[in-house]
Amino acid sequence: MSRPPLHDVAHLGYVELLTPEFDKSLWFFTDVLGLTVVSAEGNSAYLRTWDDYERHTLKLTGHATSGIARVAMRAESPEALERRVKAVEASGRGIGWKDGDPGIGPTYAFHDPDGHVMELYYETQWYADSRPAELAPALKNQAQAYPARGVSVRNLDHVNYLAVESAQCGDFMVDQLGARITEQIQLDTGRVSAVWTHFAQKSYDVVYTDDWTGTAGRLHHIAFRTDTREDILRAADIALEAGVFIETGPHKHAIQQTFFLYLYEPGGNRIELCNPVGRLIFAPDWKTITWTQAERAKGQAWGLKTIESFHTHGTPPVG
Amino acid sequence: MSRPPLHDVAHLGYVELLTPEFDKSLWFFTDVLGLTVVSAEGNSAYLRTWDDYERHTLKLTGHATSGIARVAMRAESPEALERRVKAVEASGRGIGWKDGDPGIGPTYAFHDPDGHVMELYYETQWYADSRPAELAPALKNQAQAYPARGVSVRNLDHVNYLAVESAQCGDFMVDQLGARITEQIQLDTGRVSAVWTHFAQKSYDVVYTDDWTGTAGRLHHIAFRTDTREDILRAADIALEAGVFIETGPHKHAIQQTFFLYLYEPGGNRIELCNPVGRLIFAPDWKTITWTQAERAKGQAWGLKTIESFHTHGTPPVG
Amino acid sequence: MSRPPLHDVAHLGYVELLTPEFDKSLWFFTDVLGLTVVSAEGNSAYLRTWDDYERHTLKLTGHATSGIARVAMRAESPEALERRVKAVEASGRGIGWKDGDPGIGPTYAFHDPDGHVMELYYETQWYADSRPAELAPALKNQAQAYPARGVSVRNLDHVNYLAVESAQCGDFMVDQLGARITEQIQLDTGRVSAVWTHFAQKSYDVVYTDDWTGTAGRLHHIAFRTDTREDILRAADIALEAGVFIETGPHKHAIQQTFFLYLYEPGGNRIELCNPVGRLIFAPDWKTITWTQAERAKGQAWGLKTIESFHTHGTPPVG
Amino acid sequence: MSRPPLHDVAHLGYVELLTPEFDKSLWFFTDVLGLTVVSAEGNSAYLRTWDDYERHTLKLTGHATSGIARVAMRAESPEALERRVKAVEASGRGIGWKDGDPGIGPTYAFHDPDGHVMELYYETQWYADSRPAELAPALKNQAQAYPARGVSVRNLDHVNYLAVESAQCGDFMVDQLGARITEQIQLDTGRVSAVWTHFAQKSYDVVYTDDWTGTAGRLHHIAFRTDTREDILRAADIALEAGVFIETGPHKHAIQQTFFLYLYEPGGNRIELCNPVGRLIFAPDWKTITWTQAERAKGQAWGLKTIESFHTHGTPPVG
Repeated sequence: MSRPPLHDVAHLGYVELLTPEFDKSLWFFTDVLGLTVVSAEGNSAYLRTWDDYERHTLKLTGHATSGIARVAMRAESPEALERRVKAVEASGRGIGWKDGDPGIGPTYAFHDPDGHVMELYYETQWYADSRPAELAPALKNQAQAYPARGVSVRNLDHVNYLAVESAQCGDFMVDQLGARITEQIQLDTGRVSAVWTHFAQKSYDVVYTDDWTGTAGRLHHIAFRTDTREDILRAADIALEAGVFIETGPHKHAIQQTFFLYLYEPGGNRIELCNPVGRLIFAPDWKTITWTQAERAKGQAWGLKTIESFHTHGTPPVG
Repeated sequence: MSRPPLHDVAHLGYVELLTPEFDKSLWFFTDVLGLTVVSAEGNSAYLRTWDDYERHTLKLTGHATSGIARVAMRAESPEALERRVKAVEASGRGIGWKDGDPGIGPTYAFHDPDGHVMELYYETQWYADSRPAELAPALKNQAQAYPARGVSVRNLDHVNYLAVESAQCGDFMVDQLGARITEQIQLDTGRVSAVWTHFAQKSYDVVYTDDWTGTAGRLHHIAFRTDTREDILRAADIALEAGVFIETGPHKHAIQQTFFLYLYEPGGNRIELCNPVGRLIFAPDWKTITWTQAERAKGQAWGLKTIESFHTHGTPPVG
Repeated sequence: MSRPPLHDVAHLGYVELLTPEFDKSLWFFTDVLGLTVVSAEGNSAYLRTWDDYERHTLKLTGHATSGIARVAMRAESPEALERRVKAVEASGRGIGWKDGDPGIGPTYAFHDPDGHVMELYYETQWYADSRPAELAPALKNQAQAYPARGVSVRNLDHVNYLAVESAQCGDFMVDQLGARITEQIQLDTGRVSAVWTHFAQKSYDVVYTDDWTGTAGRLHHIAFRTDTREDILRAADIALEAGVFIETGPHKHAIQQTFFLYLYEPGGNRIELCNPVGRLIFAPDWKTITWTQAERAKGQAWGLKTIESFHTHGTPPVG
Repeated sequence: MSRPPLHDVAHLGYVELLTPEFDKSLWFFTDVLGLTVVSAEGNSAYLRTWDDYERHTLKLTGHATSGIARVAMRAESPEALERRVKAVEASGRGIGWKDGDPGIGPTYAFHDPDGHVMELYYETQWYADSRPAELAPALKNQAQAYPARGVSVRNLDHVNYLAVESAQCGDFMVDQLGARITEQIQLDTGRVSAVWTHFAQKSYDVVYTDDWTGTAGRLHHIAFRTDTREDILRAADIALEAGVFIETGPHKHAIQQTFFLYLYEPGGNRIELCNPVGRLIFAPDWKTITWTQAERAKGQAWGLKTIESFHTHGTPPVG
């Protein structure tokens, strides 16, 4: 069977996010979401969620615009890294090897078909090996003490890109990175306009949605996972008190059935807080779920209409 | 690298549980836990949890004693099935091929080192393909309508065996089935007395704990996963009202950090209801967490002492 | 001090609801919401929520139209009943004494200024005194065993009437029944268009909202309380699976901060499921919170716009 | 009927707690529980929970020992205050009038039969009238912005005293303060050894439990209410990470059905975090629930044995 091997990419590593409002964005990620600053360097800060076993989860960088600079993914093994680099090189989308970020080993950079920068690496420093004593957790099977500050998000959950050709980008994830498509949207014209791809039991990791402006390289949102739906409800209260813009939610997506809340961080990037409520994909032969235009028109799971700004707000802004 | 390949076993398939109180056990699984009966045959009933994409999750069989008859696991692919069967055969623990259960293709049976019967298969019938219309879900990415009856558990989560030599059984899972050990208990004598093994991002699937009676082939418990911790709390109320024995909990395990409730079903088998609260293992090179005797003596995460009957009650009962 | 005495009305007793789809409405209240049928009589059924200490919570009556027939309230004492009856009689809105419903003693009927029928009583039969053995709870401080069926709502929470003159109705609740107004909406014209009145620590029990059709005697909704917000989220799933129309929610009201879900029962009446998340009014001199038109325009607490049908759907329908 | 009038006491106002570890106790209440410091004076700090409409909820005072200095209660009206003061004076337990605490008007002090100091007042300053701008809530019907720090408890919920004669103290609450007894424990000897008294719909406010040492004036615990049970579970994690001693829980009480967690604050006082999960007492003629010795021996609602230290740890310590 020619199906590409799942599992060569283990998981999302970290994301570099750009913001024209660095100080305010830093406040958002530390005080509102509860991330911890690991280090700072130039106009960037490295931050982490409390359950990330690696050193950092988010690199926040001051920039002229908002948007996403790159997404790094950890390979399952050195051999898997080698396999994926070869596949990417063969596709002609490779950029090349470089030194990794702090705590990260040799890193291979490349573009997806929409021009988003992605990176692959295997070597990584475990946070527990350099963790300050005061952040040590009470339970030794945990990366860091639970912060109990703001939303206290647990992990980076997924990245949702905008792309000129979502279907092509999905195919790239499948063919070059060994991902699989769990769900997708197909318009009445036959065009696949959004794809949800995953690497393992988590039901999605990298998502592409068609960019209505036809502009390449943009971001729809990045998402952080909370432990419970109650955390999402509380997050809405926290956002309300903090004056953070709530775009839509809390509600439950029909697609993937994720419980969600969408915020704009002060730099303008859309941030989803999500809780999958126990949903995992166990079937190794999962059959892609295809949602029609009519089904999408019904809105979210419990009937909330999909908010109009989902189709007008991306970062960086255009026009 | 000689590390055995993870991911050849995709997930737990189903469990055959034995009960000397068939009618009462059936009531427990349908009315208290909320499973759905798929079919009956002889002195057995096939039942399913609502989020199982396969046909059944549990085969309940009337028998002279309680205990676990077998556990079936689905392979990741036909090739993975072949690889694992070869590895098991090489270990001398194979039993052989047989026709599968209803809805299941060719099945290879074998013993673990403690004599528990295990089975591997790849071909399986998706429940959605034979589902009665009245059990169709509102959302097409779901296997069955949410039952809203009793606890309404979502999935089979894990099996926790008793074994004469837990460490040896753990090694078998690693060497023959490609599992990995995420956490373990090591006594002051150096003996590893319990191992938690997993197949993918779920942090454990098959667990072994030393049997204090030195009897082979017994069960500590099987566990069903709920969506939320609130479901566990509500389950405690439901068990209380139904007169089902609550052994311990709700509380949070230190090991694996699972939120739990332990019940005895009327046939005497221990049933755990569990919620992992978002914990997944992402690191492909996860370092086994070893808990010492002193650490275990502290009890569960929030201080509840491990209940004495955890070390005296297994099924079938002995002596 | 001339302020009318709070506490003469202890709490809402029961509601008689009318439905043109009796069988379907009965299915909704028993299977979807989890109420228990106590008795049936003519074209009516008496139902109860599991935490009601009295005999019944809801009388459901087959009728040509939907709507609310009457709301009964229990007085704090025989003396309080006498005081309130006198006050109502003095207002000229009394109807008179009659035999009460099954399990209810002498009952005084009257109209509010909008013509809704209300009743006051003191004598009542405790459910525990006639409860079937199989519905006995495990804990003796509870009225009935938790049903674990559908949403399993706990109590009737409040009634929200439509009225031609909400402010006048609110004054009637205050002056004749000793209620107080915790929150209200005041339009830019100065008109008070909605009032939330309460009898004790619960922050509202009887609500009036202006009827856009200018028709007297109609209902906006009745509400049932769940134990947790998770119950509300689960209720949305249950409604989705059952094909029950979800009008709006789950979300959090700005006014009163209640977490809510609005459904239409098959007879057309709007049913709210609500959870106040711990909010009680302790201050004996609570100062009425007045929301302006501009504040209301912001929508619900987390930004959800108030659904248009809140201002177009009432029961019975008109025109 | 000679039953004393309920409702003359509106609610618990604030508590003065003593601690031999002032700095650590202050850390506990602000960083772990999430209270806000309002002011400091001498060796005392005034703190508040975010949903308290009055100025402060807790006065924390450095002292040679732990224990409770006094509990203040707000009367329903000036007339109710007068009535209760007369009743207390008539009992011979009055101390007399004094100036109130900051923000509190004239205050009448007295002893309960066990010598605990209690106070009654009516005049009070609303927190909203002096609230710093940065603590203003987003929703105007709320006293203070939700802090999102540590447990973020919502309100003081109840005080549980130790007493030489609990039943006598309960009678005092009923006869002098107009409380009622919702539940009690009666030993096989006929002795009532614990009483739960309440003022309104909340099912208990002041509790007495027999002191096993026969020492007067001691404290079993004070309790703070959270919004949800999930907050209690999260609180257990927070306590674990902070190194705060967890005595027992989370679990559900059989008596009153409250979901609970018991901690020791660094000064040694026992602090309960509790969530009543929607339980209110509506019946104006509620019949006191009496638990027998045998029923109590069953432990808590879901079977957890009542922890031994409940009968050995009180503050201040004796002997």
